[in-house]
Amino acid sequence: MSTPLGAWLEQRRSLVEQALGEALPPAAAWPPPIHEAMRYSVFAGGKRLRPLLALAGCAAVGGRDEDALPLAVAVELIHTYSLIHDDLPAMDDDDLRRGKPTSHKVFGEANAILAGDALLTRAFAVLAELPPRAAAESAARRLRAIALLAEACGTAGLIGGQVADLAAEGHDLKPPELERIHRGKTGALLTACVAGGGVLGGADDAQVAALTRFGRAAGLAFQVIDDVLDATEGAQTLGKTPGKDAKAGKATYVRLLGVDGARERAHLLLGEALGAIADLGGGAEPLRGLAVQLVERHS
Amino acid sequence: MSTPLGAWLEQRRSLVEQALGEALPPAAAWPPPIHEAMRYSVFAGGKRLRPLLALAGCAAVGGRDEDALPLAVAVELIHTYSLIHDDLPAMDDDDLRRGKPTSHKVFGEANAILAGDALLTRAFAVLAELPPRAAAESAARRLRAIALLAEACGTAGLIGGQVADLAAEGHDLKPPELERIHRGKTGALLTACVAGGGVLGGADDAQVAALTRFGRAAGLAFQVIDDVLDATEGAQTLGKTPGKDAKAGKATYVRLLGVDGARERAHLLLGEALGAIADLGGGAEPLRGLAVQLVERHS
Repeated sequence: MSTPLGAWLEQRRSLVEQALGEALPPAAAWPPPIHEAMRYSVFAGGKRLRPLLALAGCAAVGGRDEDALPLAVAVELIHTYSLIHDDLPAMDDDDLRRGKPTSHKVFGEANAILAGDALLTRAFAVLAELPPRAAAESAARRLRAIALLAEACGTAGLIGGQVADLAAEGHDLKPPELERIHRGKTGALLTACVAGGGVLGGADDAQVAALTRFGRAAGLAFQVIDDVLDATEGAQTLGKTPGKDAKAGKATYVRLLGVDGARERAHLLLGEALGAIADLGGGAEPLRGLAVQLVERHS
Repeated sequence: MSTPLGAWLEQRRSLVEQALGEALPPAAAWPPPIHEAMRYSVFAGGKRLRPLLALAGCAAVGGRDEDALPLAVAVELIHTYSLIHDDLPAMDDDDLRRGKPTSHKVFGEANAILAGDALLTRAFAVLAELPPRAAAESAARRLRAIALLAEACGTAGLIGGQVADLAAEGHDLKPPELERIHRGKTGALLTACVAGGGVLGGADDAQVAALTRFGRAAGLAFQVIDDVLDATEGAQTLGKTPGKDAKAGKATYVRLLGVDGARERAHLLLGEALGAIADLGGGAEPLRGLAVQLVERHS
């Protein structure tokens, strides 16, 4: 049974799959095995949440899918790079990701590091490649999306969160510190997806600000639910080793608030996210639907 | 005794040092020790060859220093990231770089990987941050420079060269294969410096093509001389372990051509580089001087 949201998401998922395939050289291209390694992790069964947020952010301000598609590809490449590097023996030392052996287990550590580097680099290339005869304002919008994305992936965002997360292992964290880590590690990139999608769709400053508020609240809700699922679901549902963060002595929302408290917090954040985009009319329906799915998901 | 070229380079080197300092957060900024690690490697005594090539490429087409300064910063951040990752235990496993302990020796492997990731990310952020009230064509030029740079750093360039170099250890390479590795590992980024500097300085298509031909030849000459110095100079002059590549069974130009043959090849390439920019008038003098210095250097 297909709901309107379900149909919207299904169509965009296949757009994104196709664009991801076209954005990466063939697996056998010189030099082996780098492209095979890049494709292995990009096509390991991700749900494409970040690309869908980018397309939904664009739709929310009346933009077209093709405006935000390069960003949709870029954010999935970046998400994949961050997973490959986080899984390395020197970092979280994970053997399993989405139910499959991690990159360094299959291709060796050197190739895993380089595949991550290559995906990060390719993300910016995809965003910077403007079709010939693009409209005059396109370059300025693309540049702004690159600036947003690079900021979100830097030491105030994705990388900063991972650095702080590694440093926090075995320490008792207070809620504001945990929140800061998660805002960096997960929230910053999710926010850049939504806001960057808006920028590419032609959002004005007030719309970008609304999408940013939405992204911050929805991103944190997403992480809170991640902690809940890590504590309550099995390996088969999650596709990764459950309870690992808690065992590693990492702070989680469940440790701080309990399972019920964490779920309640996620629903409060969902309300905050929906409130931020209340003025954005019918084009924002997919974004609203995605936020609800994020909080009500089971894997 | 200061020559005109010497004075030009000295002034630009201090511009670059200042801009690099401003492009990175303070060492103590949250979260420790990522910014300290980034600064440690960026300010480890590099000669700033790549930034100088970017500024010289810009000057060669009549551009101003401030047009190319963001690229000058970006290419040095990217060069530094590539050194940090190449030195990792899983890659070349080097303890010494520019006479100092390598990043993973000082900050640990996880922080070294993340510092490299952060420098690569920051490079694109610096290029994407356009000052308010920038001229209308600035965004298009910046975007084109980002596209050039990302392409040069990807699997057809910097990363591809490193992948192929690691795979080639212990194998006998023929000259075309060795050249392909070096064109990727060193040449692609050096070419992007010169051509990207030109783009930011307002080069037309013919000028970008000339700068690209210059960069390809000069970049390969640089690598040939690197092999010569690796075979003939001591650790103190080089600031790294000499003869390491040859011992690791890596192919080098000295192994293929002998020391004299390699020097001769470098001078032929220098001639090719200078020929490519013969039409570029007096503004290209710093670029010509840099190319000569590259081939006649002793460290």
